[in-house]
Amino acid sequence: MASIEEKFAKLGVDNAPGQEVRQKTVTAQLTGDVIEGRRVDFSHGDVDAFPPIPGSFEAFQAGFEEGAPQAYTEYRGRGVLREQLAKDLAAFTGAPVEADSELIVTPGTQGALFLAMGCNIGTGDKVAIVEPDYFANRKLVEFFEGELVSVGLDYFHAAPGQAGLDMNRLEEVFRDGVKLFLFSNPNNPTGAIFSEEEIRGIAALAQKYGVKIICDELYSRQIFDDHPYTHLRALGMMDPNNLITIMGPSKTESVSGFRLGAAFGSPEMILRMEKLQAIVSLRAAGYCQSVLKVRFHEPEGWMRERVAAHQRIRDDMVREFGKIPGCAVRPTEGGSYLFPRMPELKLSMKEFVSALRVQANVVVTPGTEFGPQFTDSFRINFSQDRAAAVDAVRRIAKMVERYRK
Amino acid sequence: MASIEEKFAKLGVDNAPGQEVRQKTVTAQLTGDVIEGRRVDFSHGDVDAFPPIPGSFEAFQAGFEEGAPQAYTEYRGRGVLREQLAKDLAAFTGAPVEADSELIVTPGTQGALFLAMGCNIGTGDKVAIVEPDYFANRKLVEFFEGELVSVGLDYFHAAPGQAGLDMNRLEEVFRDGVKLFLFSNPNNPTGAIFSEEEIRGIAALAQKYGVKIICDELYSRQIFDDHPYTHLRALGMMDPNNLITIMGPSKTESVSGFRLGAAFGSPEMILRMEKLQAIVSLRAAGYCQSVLKVRFHEPEGWMRERVAAHQRIRDDMVREFGKIPGCAVRPTEGGSYLFPRMPELKLSMKEFVSALRVQANVVVTPGTEFGPQFTDSFRINFSQDRAAAVDAVRRIAKMVERYRK
Repeated sequence: MASIEEKFAKLGVDNAPGQEVRQKTVTAQLTGDVIEGRRVDFSHGDVDAFPPIPGSFEAFQAGFEEGAPQAYTEYRGRGVLREQLAKDLAAFTGAPVEADSELIVTPGTQGALFLAMGCNIGTGDKVAIVEPDYFANRKLVEFFEGELVSVGLDYFHAAPGQAGLDMNRLEEVFRDGVKLFLFSNPNNPTGAIFSEEEIRGIAALAQKYGVKIICDELYSRQIFDDHPYTHLRALGMMDPNNLITIMGPSKTESVSGFRLGAAFGSPEMILRMEKLQAIVSLRAAGYCQSVLKVRFHEPEGWMRERVAAHQRIRDDMVREFGKIPGCAVRPTEGGSYLFPRMPELKLSMKEFVSALRVQANVVVTPGTEFGPQFTDSFRINFSQDRAAAVDAVRRIAKMVERYRK
Repeated sequence: MASIEEKFAKLGVDNAPGQEVRQKTVTAQLTGDVIEGRRVDFSHGDVDAFPPIPGSFEAFQAGFEEGAPQAYTEYRGRGVLREQLAKDLAAFTGAPVEADSELIVTPGTQGALFLAMGCNIGTGDKVAIVEPDYFANRKLVEFFEGELVSVGLDYFHAAPGQAGLDMNRLEEVFRDGVKLFLFSNPNNPTGAIFSEEEIRGIAALAQKYGVKIICDELYSRQIFDDHPYTHLRALGMMDPNNLITIMGPSKTESVSGFRLGAAFGSPEMILRMEKLQAIVSLRAAGYCQSVLKVRFHEPEGWMRERVAAHQRIRDDMVREFGKIPGCAVRPTEGGSYLFPRMPELKLSMKEFVSALRVQANVVVTPGTEFGPQFTDSFRINFSQDRAAAVDAVRRIAKMVERYRK
């Protein structure tokens, strides 16, 4: 058995998004000068370029002024807020949510993911994740000492309309004893959306083999080109006690500074998640919970315009990366991520990412955070100032030429 | 090995402080009428009676308005805030704190405790806790699958000036292979403060046997009667790499609705805690972190008056419980808790606690949350409206007479 020190040695954090200030050393031999330009941190969205939902600060203020009932809520979140959120989530996802037993408010979507994983993974349990997918998924399985099983997403060669999940492999690992399957839809980091056929396939296999599902729908409100989107929970194809869906307003709605998320579904799992929350952090910050009031109740047209603005940037990004010879990118269908694959370079991807930071004032997240095999790709979050983002990709293009093999 | 369901079955939550709305059923045979009076929830402090530090809302607002740099901070907390907090904590505890490597900001003190325990406990590791002590300590050891070892605190029969820790037992369990010792000072739920002799004894034993220490000093700013208080970390008696101290502004400062805490000490442990925070909840809510600016910088005299106000309520509480024949209570030396022992009753303590809620409109926390043997005690948090608290204890007194054996 691994010692606690060994266990944590595997839990990297320096290359995680948001941690770029900790990346101090550059080991590669760099050539050429610094390419001037406004710094763009593509590791996460820019809430200055896309500010929080109008009224979110005022909602917080009202909660603060209400005092005690909002400061100390139930661990699973304040009852009156859960009532409203349950209705909103039910309407959005197309299946009922019972406020009292089927919903928990968490400190961010990360909090929801941690609790959902922690209340389902026992030592040695087989847990399936997609590769590539959100960087913390793998770490969570390792932290809870599950056995990691990966299922590929062939996002470059998928049939039209498909995300590209390897359904044969999925059935194989489910048959081999996987207990829990976690995936994000739209996929992070590629922005691929699973087709209805794929979602139905996942639900049917989960039902057939009794596998539990955690479905991370963090970006499901930011869909481009009216791409079809299927909520797994709305299909009614699998035991609802085996399914947890996760959402949160940290992304499209830009209220990440309040740290709010939600998980909903299986009452058994929600209860276990609350027990875990009681020892992890008690509750999402009480006053911040008030901000849930404005979510799903944005001003008329606000959400449509926000999605359209991101779609315009997506188009710019795809066009600019497309100009780089040998670079491949699948256009984002939902969410704010793009996962471009680079041509062969003289630097390793880790070194190239460092070089981008030091020589081009651009921060991106190395592909290996999303699966060890993605040594030729990096992720960008294009929820940025549009002109600055375009200029940053042009600097990336210059850097590719500088270090092209 | 326990299944995940069995593991969570042991993690109770319904009787935890703040969860009283979930306590629906009363199984005991109750007699007599409801005793009228304003509802008092002694399970936690009342932030309406003792509002947050002046300027805390404005500090939050400034953080919100600053935008991106405050929304997405490093996982261990924003650098400029850690710089200031490190200085404040060093001055308060009497030993240096290095902002960059020795401090992490967490979602509440509970968050700090979870991370500190999670980054130190491997499966089967022996972990010592005090009985009685904070209710989550035991649950954390169980969740991380450590082996729980308890050390008694004889708070009723301690020598003058001592908390009453069984030092012989402490050495015995350290000698027997305990890897980690967690304790709160002032003790929760009794409000007893460890003497300098006791703290020196703990430090010497930790050093002798290479035991790691997590010292929870949550209530160390609220000390009554100028009682002496010794910060373990200031003694310099043990390897600083083996020591983490925890504090937070949720209690005396009443900013619990923002969920802020901090852990400081061992750089190795702080790094592991940050790695864990990256998968647990990323960071304390970004905007909320701004509130750390006002802590330790309260208006002149504010803190002194706040402590004095609590001391007056403490005196009232001790006097009122003292009037109940057969009731014993050790006067709180620090913090807002009192842990009165009741005379023999016809109801079990769990039933009596339910009866208090239903018949006297008073919420208290059953003693068994702090150790299985405390079946004759309950905890109150007396950070409440003073008159309402006194009246509530008088109702408790009537209930004791009603159910006295």
